[in-house]
Amino acid sequence: MRLNVPTLLLDKKKSLENIRRMVEKARRNGVRLRPHFKTHQSAQVGAWFRDFGVDAITVSSFRMANYFANQGWQDIMVAFPANVLEIDRINELASRVKLHVVAVNIDTVEALAHHLRHPVQLWLKIDTGYRRTGLLPHNHSELDKILNEVKQSEKLRFEGFVVHDGHTYKQTDTEAIQTIHNTSVYLLHMLRKRYMKQFPGLQLSIGDTPSCSILENLSGVDEIRPGNFVFYDLTQQRIGSCSFDDIAVCMACPVVAKHPERGEIILYGGSVHFSKDSLLQEDGSVSYGRIVEFTENGWTAPLEGIELVSLSQEHSIVKASPQQFDKYKIGDMMGILPVHSCLTADLMKGYVTVEGEYLDHLSGLPQQCELVS
Amino acid sequence: MRLNVPTLLLDKKKSLENIRRMVEKARRNGVRLRPHFKTHQSAQVGAWFRDFGVDAITVSSFRMANYFANQGWQDIMVAFPANVLEIDRINELASRVKLHVVAVNIDTVEALAHHLRHPVQLWLKIDTGYRRTGLLPHNHSELDKILNEVKQSEKLRFEGFVVHDGHTYKQTDTEAIQTIHNTSVYLLHMLRKRYMKQFPGLQLSIGDTPSCSILENLSGVDEIRPGNFVFYDLTQQRIGSCSFDDIAVCMACPVVAKHPERGEIILYGGSVHFSKDSLLQEDGSVSYGRIVEFTENGWTAPLEGIELVSLSQEHSIVKASPQQFDKYKIGDMMGILPVHSCLTADLMKGYVTVEGEYLDHLSGLPQQCELVS
Repeated sequence: MRLNVPTLLLDKKKSLENIRRMVEKARRNGVRLRPHFKTHQSAQVGAWFRDFGVDAITVSSFRMANYFANQGWQDIMVAFPANVLEIDRINELASRVKLHVVAVNIDTVEALAHHLRHPVQLWLKIDTGYRRTGLLPHNHSELDKILNEVKQSEKLRFEGFVVHDGHTYKQTDTEAIQTIHNTSVYLLHMLRKRYMKQFPGLQLSIGDTPSCSILENLSGVDEIRPGNFVFYDLTQQRIGSCSFDDIAVCMACPVVAKHPERGEIILYGGSVHFSKDSLLQEDGSVSYGRIVEFTENGWTAPLEGIELVSLSQEHSIVKASPQQFDKYKIGDMMGILPVHSCLTADLMKGYVTVEGEYLDHLSGLPQQCELVS
Repeated sequence: MRLNVPTLLLDKKKSLENIRRMVEKARRNGVRLRPHFKTHQSAQVGAWFRDFGVDAITVSSFRMANYFANQGWQDIMVAFPANVLEIDRINELASRVKLHVVAVNIDTVEALAHHLRHPVQLWLKIDTGYRRTGLLPHNHSELDKILNEVKQSEKLRFEGFVVHDGHTYKQTDTEAIQTIHNTSVYLLHMLRKRYMKQFPGLQLSIGDTPSCSILENLSGVDEIRPGNFVFYDLTQQRIGSCSFDDIAVCMACPVVAKHPERGEIILYGGSVHFSKDSLLQEDGSVSYGRIVEFTENGWTAPLEGIELVSLSQEHSIVKASPQQFDKYKIGDMMGILPVHSCLTADLMKGYVTVEGEYLDHLSGLPQQCELVS
């Protein structure tokens, strides 16, 4: 395999191992794994999950739902406050798959009730502390109003409550993550108790990669929806969700310039390849990626004394100790572990496995590809 | 025109006016305008430049060069330290267009001299203060070495020196930008003086949007290569390169949730649409975009009391005063001026003009499209 431009490498073995671990953890806990596919957005990576017995998935847009529906997925949750402007696409999807939508307000539920032509599974998103979006768990008046509307609808089928604890991403110790998780489960249980008589089968679904990776006990809910774990990244390593060795994607970028007077190496590969997510280092500096060395079948752990410190549109700057600096020459490919694999994958629009196989990403397909199988 | 998902709107009249102003400024100064097409990356927007008599362009990758070569452009500079790993593509391009490449070291020049099969115009990139990449202007020994190598090559034709003063992007006053520009021109003149006897026709090329927008006098160089001015954005407005009214692109995003208890509106539109570039506000807060209202033929100036304050992968959070908050309902489309139009355009992969016409972006085309015309 000869690479010559910025390329996103994927170590299939690591990814399969990440999937296997999460599948087994879900089984041990007796919860359904409905993995979030927004991280990989790839037909082929999706198929790896199917081989592990996964048959229900999560996505973040109706376009993504359509793409995976065309790949044969039949049970799809769009875990994003339903955009009622896309009602035609929602109806089209609901006509052919078991479609789960999420609402956070009565307006959306009324619009769905009015315009749906096919049955749809409805989940209400609860904000248990992240404060991005969702209904507050004590907002019983709004919840009652919504669920009364649902009961009168022939098309809306109430499934239960979903939570996304995005604030676990800001934590770096297990106890904080345990506290966040316990809080959500407690609040969800109170909601279940309140509405169980009206909706006996109602389910509880949670979904962040840090909780699902770090905590052993995930019982108390019916479903988990982690996504990032399929690849992991430096952010998850920092949180404690994974080791460096679990990170299954790695950028490969050409060395185009060297500046010995300041120990800096310039790569072809910038914010249009990596995205701009960064990690604050202990010394106050900012890192956009850790450097690894390629091996015959993958890459090493991150090297010390060398770091991706700056990104512009197509360039990046690697700061290196004299020892590391001397190892690279113009025309080499350098390996970089990404800070946020979801965004890097979205920008790179495709993968090359370490065995040299090309894998699709939804963003790399022409708009019309999503319409065909 | 009925939009229902995040969409990048383009006001063609504003863009044409931005192009016209830069074309006229270049003419007044007697310099060649070689606009950087990495901002728009669009065949159709490129054609607008051609209507103004522009026939030489700048791009940031060989893939982009190929795309515009297929659109009939015959004089293309790839303003990025040449990636010698792409020698096959370089040779293919050089066989059919006047291709200008940029080098910053002897290694690249030697590799090009060895592997080129067709004539290529070579520029040396000089670092006059930005400190990203480039040869230092006083590094005569390296410059001599490179230019001796060039003289012995049958394929390399030395064109001159290029500078990109990216540090103007950090300035907000005209005097600082004037100082940066004068420094570069002075250093380039010294280089020209040193090498003019050996290369009588050698040219000087500079290229940042702030200098080219703000300064009236751009004489002293042969060529300017600004790019962002075709659309401008909030970053350029902050620098002083443009007014809000000159910004020619605007995101349109669906309102999917409202949280009155904290005055926040949730949009469908996140970092996979906007990119993560932000602007630090005077009060220490961070802005990811300014909100505008749509009018019949475009949009208004930014509103006060409402701001895009947070981005995650597909969501964003708008903070609004009670008065602004009440104006929006679920299912509305909200207008947002982007912080960095180059990155937003790259992510959005296409434009819709305010008249409803769809325009391409290289990133939205399937990989194979670039090979055909």
